[in-house]
Amino acid sequence: MNNLQIKTPTLLVNLDQCRRNIRKIKNKTLQHDATFRPHFKTHQSIQIGKIFREEGISSITVSSVRMATYFARDNWQDITIAFPVNWLEIDEINVLARQVRLGLLVESIESVHFLQTNLQHPVNAWIKIDVGTHRTGVSSKDFDGVCTLAEALSVTKKLHFRGLLAHAGHTYRARGGDEISSIHEAAHAQVLTLKHRLATKYPSIQLSYGDTPSASQMHIIKGVDEWRPGNLVFYDWMQHQIGSCETNEIALAMVCPVVALHPERNELVVYGGGVHFSKDFIEENGHRTYGQAVVWNGNNWGAPIKDTYLSRLSQEHGIVHAPDDLFREIRIGSLMAFLPIHACLTADAMTQFLSMEGERLNAMKQDF
Amino acid sequence: MNNLQIKTPTLLVNLDQCRRNIRKIKNKTLQHDATFRPHFKTHQSIQIGKIFREEGISSITVSSVRMATYFARDNWQDITIAFPVNWLEIDEINVLARQVRLGLLVESIESVHFLQTNLQHPVNAWIKIDVGTHRTGVSSKDFDGVCTLAEALSVTKKLHFRGLLAHAGHTYRARGGDEISSIHEAAHAQVLTLKHRLATKYPSIQLSYGDTPSASQMHIIKGVDEWRPGNLVFYDWMQHQIGSCETNEIALAMVCPVVALHPERNELVVYGGGVHFSKDFIEENGHRTYGQAVVWNGNNWGAPIKDTYLSRLSQEHGIVHAPDDLFREIRIGSLMAFLPIHACLTADAMTQFLSMEGERLNAMKQDF
Repeated sequence: MNNLQIKTPTLLVNLDQCRRNIRKIKNKTLQHDATFRPHFKTHQSIQIGKIFREEGISSITVSSVRMATYFARDNWQDITIAFPVNWLEIDEINVLARQVRLGLLVESIESVHFLQTNLQHPVNAWIKIDVGTHRTGVSSKDFDGVCTLAEALSVTKKLHFRGLLAHAGHTYRARGGDEISSIHEAAHAQVLTLKHRLATKYPSIQLSYGDTPSASQMHIIKGVDEWRPGNLVFYDWMQHQIGSCETNEIALAMVCPVVALHPERNELVVYGGGVHFSKDFIEENGHRTYGQAVVWNGNNWGAPIKDTYLSRLSQEHGIVHAPDDLFREIRIGSLMAFLPIHACLTADAMTQFLSMEGERLNAMKQDF
Repeated sequence: MNNLQIKTPTLLVNLDQCRRNIRKIKNKTLQHDATFRPHFKTHQSIQIGKIFREEGISSITVSSVRMATYFARDNWQDITIAFPVNWLEIDEINVLARQVRLGLLVESIESVHFLQTNLQHPVNAWIKIDVGTHRTGVSSKDFDGVCTLAEALSVTKKLHFRGLLAHAGHTYRARGGDEISSIHEAAHAQVLTLKHRLATKYPSIQLSYGDTPSASQMHIIKGVDEWRPGNLVFYDWMQHQIGSCETNEIALAMVCPVVALHPERNELVVYGGGVHFSKDFIEENGHRTYGQAVVWNGNNWGAPIKDTYLSRLSQEHGIVHAPDDLFREIRIGSLMAFLPIHACLTADAMTQFLSMEGERLNAMKQDF
């Protein structure tokens, strides 16, 4: 009943489901004349990247210079680093700019001047627009600020002004398709207005748009030239709670050995903690969930198990809240499977995946 | 002003401070005729382990079979795995039991029977006692349950019954020395009573006791034969808030490049996110803190900067809350330093340290 020879916390990936998830979004973007530039920070794996390549994807997004360098080694030739320029890595940026079609984000005049002075090769530049997430970027309401950056870019030889880039990260606070749509529509309207106003002067500028919830619930797509969701290759329990996916679209599950039973307080302990799952959690029905238990048949996982979830995590311990009847089937030495809360951070913590076919796939921290 | 050539998020370790922290606890334990068996899960590094060895430590604690195997390769000969036995790793346990003086935890009769049947070499066995943390272990109030396990151990040839092992992890909920002492005293009293009751039948049994807050604030030490704190080698902002250490005893700081400034909302963005710090946080003055900013002079860090902390983390972004005057000194391309919230998880996420002398030290995930 354990054909995969699992002995320790293991992050299983269903590669067929990854492919289905990729196709679904790719087809959506194609139908609307947009490009799909998936964010590879979610998996950080050359091997999983190959599935995207097989599905015809050639342009990608990453979140660090290091990650861009890693994927450039696997011959990805069109890479946008969707993170404010880290001036301290200008040498590495110059190496990349020589090798690949590199996209950078700017959100300050200081960074434009810095790049103007220090770039040795041309790159594409996107103005990062803050559509309400308030993480970074020029406010979508600051038309003058955007114009100043656009002007500075358009006179800078090494920087080719490509357009506006937005990430509606605040969709992660949504619960359900209607809430996603409402946040997405507001964010999208702001950035589209900006694009139209700028288009009189810069007719060829594009709009690059991110986030998995919006991409998954994509109804309004007017004027978006490029989509950059990342998480959708795996999805996770948080995305399901947000309303981005069905549970059977989630392509990752962590399989953990059961090491202690405490039926008197409806708890059991698995080998699987913060160093495996990450400490991201969601609040659900008045409690924190660090992972949602699913049926495990020895070879594959199935539907979520009602009222059974990781309620606390130590470094290596996972405390599972479980109803009485679960203790009739679970023994010490059994395996349990959990849908991760946040696939990107879980994948980063594990640095390795096991496919359903038993193949080990490495991520960047293992390889590079 | 950046002699260490830092370009990306870098976890600096002050090895002299580590040594002072180790000595302080070692001297405390020696004064009270106890052994210091530090928990190596905090650093997971053979290179940092060498400092302990230089300070005369020869017995250690780890939290997984894999970690025991890693340190056994560096010739650590006395290793307790302070985690419930993972039956699925019995082969690896048998390899270890042949090589080193191995200590295992038991908390169920099922695990005792499993080990009795499957162990090929003798090991030390400790009964895990739950002193109020309610993570795992036999309740300290369940004298009959403890006796049943003790009897089962004492008739099992391959298991040498060593004593009781407790971890007062609920001291982490304390704030201040008095609260630590109050939790510690209650936990300690419970387990000491148990030890005395068992001693009539098992006169040589020992008491192994854990957790950094209790060890740091150690006033009552009666009857504790062995201390197993781990975090104290580094300490962190959480331990400071708990009351375990002074800020100048914290031996780790993450140095991060500043990549964007948003003075209008008292925020700036550093390159340094959940994949670097981990997502552990504490609640402090009504807000979450994911890292506490400290003065950075280009070579070393100093005192905490008032009202300046990581308030949110994405995968690679850290959002720093900062007062107005900080924006007079900080520029894009500057470096900032932060005390991590939870050193163990930050070290695990980074997998590498940089010493103040510029030496790179690996942790297990890099090496093994």
